[in-house]
Amino acid sequence: MEASTNAVGRKLPAEIGGRVIEPFRGAFAAPGQAEAPRGPGPRPRRAAGRGRPVKLVSSWDELLDRLELRDGMTVSFHHHLRDGDAVVNETVARLAARGLKGLVIAPTALFPTHDKLVPYIESGVIERVEGSMNGRVGEACSRGAMRGLSVLRSHGGRGRAIQAGELPIDLAVIAAPCADPFGNANGLHGKSACGPLSYPEPDSVYAEQVVVVTDGLVPYPCSPWSIKGGNVDYVLEVPSIGDPSRIVSGTTRLTRSPTQLLIAEMAARFVEGTGILREGFSFQAGAGGMSLAAVARVADRMRASGIKASFAHGGATGLLVGLLEEGLLGAIVDLQSFDLEAVRSCRENPRHIESTPFTSYGPQGAGCSAGMLDLALLGATEIDLDFNVNVNTHSDGLLLHGIGGHQDAAAGSSCCVVTAPLFRKRIPIVRERVTTVSCPGEVVDVLVTERGIAVNPRRGDLRERALAAGLPVVDIAELMDAARRITGIPEEPRFKDRPVALVEWRDGGVLDVVRELDR
Amino acid sequence: MEASTNAVGRKLPAEIGGRVIEPFRGAFAAPGQAEAPRGPGPRPRRAAGRGRPVKLVSSWDELLDRLELRDGMTVSFHHHLRDGDAVVNETVARLAARGLKGLVIAPTALFPTHDKLVPYIESGVIERVEGSMNGRVGEACSRGAMRGLSVLRSHGGRGRAIQAGELPIDLAVIAAPCADPFGNANGLHGKSACGPLSYPEPDSVYAEQVVVVTDGLVPYPCSPWSIKGGNVDYVLEVPSIGDPSRIVSGTTRLTRSPTQLLIAEMAARFVEGTGILREGFSFQAGAGGMSLAAVARVADRMRASGIKASFAHGGATGLLVGLLEEGLLGAIVDLQSFDLEAVRSCRENPRHIESTPFTSYGPQGAGCSAGMLDLALLGATEIDLDFNVNVNTHSDGLLLHGIGGHQDAAAGSSCCVVTAPLFRKRIPIVRERVTTVSCPGEVVDVLVTERGIAVNPRRGDLRERALAAGLPVVDIAELMDAARRITGIPEEPRFKDRPVALVEWRDGGVLDVVRELDR
Repeated sequence: MEASTNAVGRKLPAEIGGRVIEPFRGAFAAPGQAEAPRGPGPRPRRAAGRGRPVKLVSSWDELLDRLELRDGMTVSFHHHLRDGDAVVNETVARLAARGLKGLVIAPTALFPTHDKLVPYIESGVIERVEGSMNGRVGEACSRGAMRGLSVLRSHGGRGRAIQAGELPIDLAVIAAPCADPFGNANGLHGKSACGPLSYPEPDSVYAEQVVVVTDGLVPYPCSPWSIKGGNVDYVLEVPSIGDPSRIVSGTTRLTRSPTQLLIAEMAARFVEGTGILREGFSFQAGAGGMSLAAVARVADRMRASGIKASFAHGGATGLLVGLLEEGLLGAIVDLQSFDLEAVRSCRENPRHIESTPFTSYGPQGAGCSAGMLDLALLGATEIDLDFNVNVNTHSDGLLLHGIGGHQDAAAGSSCCVVTAPLFRKRIPIVRERVTTVSCPGEVVDVLVTERGIAVNPRRGDLRERALAAGLPVVDIAELMDAARRITGIPEEPRFKDRPVALVEWRDGGVLDVVRELDR
Repeated sequence: MEASTNAVGRKLPAEIGGRVIEPFRGAFAAPGQAEAPRGPGPRPRRAAGRGRPVKLVSSWDELLDRLELRDGMTVSFHHHLRDGDAVVNETVARLAARGLKGLVIAPTALFPTHDKLVPYIESGVIERVEGSMNGRVGEACSRGAMRGLSVLRSHGGRGRAIQAGELPIDLAVIAAPCADPFGNANGLHGKSACGPLSYPEPDSVYAEQVVVVTDGLVPYPCSPWSIKGGNVDYVLEVPSIGDPSRIVSGTTRLTRSPTQLLIAEMAARFVEGTGILREGFSFQAGAGGMSLAAVARVADRMRASGIKASFAHGGATGLLVGLLEEGLLGAIVDLQSFDLEAVRSCRENPRHIESTPFTSYGPQGAGCSAGMLDLALLGATEIDLDFNVNVNTHSDGLLLHGIGGHQDAAAGSSCCVVTAPLFRKRIPIVRERVTTVSCPGEVVDVLVTERGIAVNPRRGDLRERALAAGLPVVDIAELMDAARRITGIPEEPRFKDRPVALVEWRDGGVLDVVRELDR
């Protein structure tokens, strides 16, 4: 088969290691409802007979004895315990101790605590990653330490791939702060409370084997049941699923960096000036200090003008909880809690609604929550002259981040605004060509920097409104040039030919190939 | 192909009108987890492009113009609006007005208000029913008025059949007391509030086309979202989805019949005497006056002995709500509200948990809520010497009732107790052979009548405990004889050869064939 060039101009091999490469064809080019095939369906499970199924196992060893384990199996995890998670490392260590090799790990994200997986990558216990990679694990991938080809997906794309049968999971290990012996589980109660338990929901429905690992066992029925016990085969009680102090960050803080505050203010002026800020509008923003500052500034304008938002979407923070309780927000639709205030609110407030990847981000739904957004305020490690965004690799070529919900929020929202400084550590953010395409410029509308606002030429409407509002609209190339005048033209990373990871668009088409770093 | 005899001794044709008949092989004989195939998966839907999907249609006519309609299509409905429902009749009338014929109707139950469907059956607009039939529609089926072969399934069996692809739904019409323009919907709010919106959940996920019809439109996001908007294609706002005064019965009342009170007391004595009543036990009971009286008497014993139940399951009533609020119940796991108190409680009390057919009754889950039950108190139109139960037909052969959750609660619970009087309207309840097998005696443990308690010989343990407690244990044949001494031997109904409906066990195996009545 011939190599192809995809819709963001990346040359792709026809196949890699036996996997046929379906090129990205455009953000909304995938087959419509009539053509999209149904996946293989949820895994039927069946209780052995009449009466209460016994799912509680007494130890990791009993659990592993009961499970079907094999070399090369795919094991999935969620990231709601964030940097406090102890279950991923424990599971992999125990599978390694049983002599398993060539595992495919399918986490929804990884954190610095998962740097401990690197030795298992180097020894061949872990062969590749499907879903999300971060930090040292991503770096190991970039260095070529993984024997297989990894796949990076957005949260919505991961859920779709599971549903479509493209990511078959042999074993889902679901860490749960609160669970009953039947396997009903949530993240709202217990000493390790982390907020929603959204991301493992598709895993629980589709995986061949599903295990809940909990340090907060309660009598049946545990409710709410974010994870439904009817999907769970085994429940393991452990003393601790993680370090609560690192599960959530305590409080998320607004930035104090003058540059970031300037960008936040510029973003708020854009939102107000272009009329996005109107009664009933909706938004998603990250938990970074600059995003929080931008939301705080938008909130100031809401108070001043008496405008209320219908909902905020995505991860939740104490800042959003404050707005909800103040009456400035109609609801929070939440996929993950970033701090303790958000956990409390999700537990107590019926208008703080726990979501799922399908509901919030699913590309094969009849729309999703992200599609109801007027505004997505997102970040980038790089953005190029075509507004393609890179969130996965740094300009040195190292794979250090997952996609998260970036693609889904960008594709869903009516206006996707990337906020970024002109440069970080003397590396310009605007590039002629991003190192890796994580999100196509087709769904990236605006770049807000401290030096001005660049509007994607596809969005003449937004550009006109921004100009009419007196906002400092500039060409994106000017921003690149301004940065380069300060930093010089950065050196390009050198790659070997060997592909180490694919970046999939949320519909499964390949946006880009990450190659082994040559250094 | 040869005819076969199934595990309850019913002779079955090898095929009927092209449908191969899979005989019932035993309550737990269906393939285990390793063998059960995955179904065809949820229906992928896809929003047309970026931004808010527009799902609101302005009228029934616009809705029908947009839908793909064809002769012979399967249209599904739920029964949460009960006898107040206006949506089933309206939909069928409008489909008929468009000239459609040969429709398959797949309701979760029907009520007297749906007697208006009979003319559409007679004219061939409705060809057959899949799921549940009641009242005049069932009678029309018995009379042979339907051209096709209908299929009766339990609530859990219906959900399984949908998931397995055995009941493909072309159009799900979901009446919703509260919904937003995206299609998120619940039954807890609005003028037509009916409680949970549990039964249409599988339809919403699997149907080719999904419509929400609401008289309580609210801004996005409607929550809780019992029905997720990501599964909904169109939303139609109408002035009324039904008559609120008949959606719920107002208050459900305990029986005043001395015979029924005697049976209720006997049932409570059995539950206490056999030790089922113990700390943390769980139960399901119907909403009939006799069931309520039995629950009330069990509750008296709980108060007297300080025992608390972990949960009650099934449909909810004000009686159960009172027990929950009194602290005698840890939770209510609810599939449908029978009265206004239950609606209020489900809306307000986090321990009144809305369930789904999969979670409560699913035979292909790793257990279900019904499997966590210590006790199911169920009814019967007939029961035979093998403890097979009939809930579908009367002794005159008329098909008048659906299965509801009867099979699922019986198969799940550790003890299934049928309460029934010796006879009704001079027709004995105990028969040598039930007219129709709705539930196999394999999962029916006890019959409680006003003349004594018969225990299934399979349950020697229960019989010994009942005898040790001094309960009036009798042989089931004695109960039949006692009734016959009063009523005489009833005349058997005469049937033609023509099958009009199949009764499926929850796993899809055929328990019995209902034949056209000859009269």
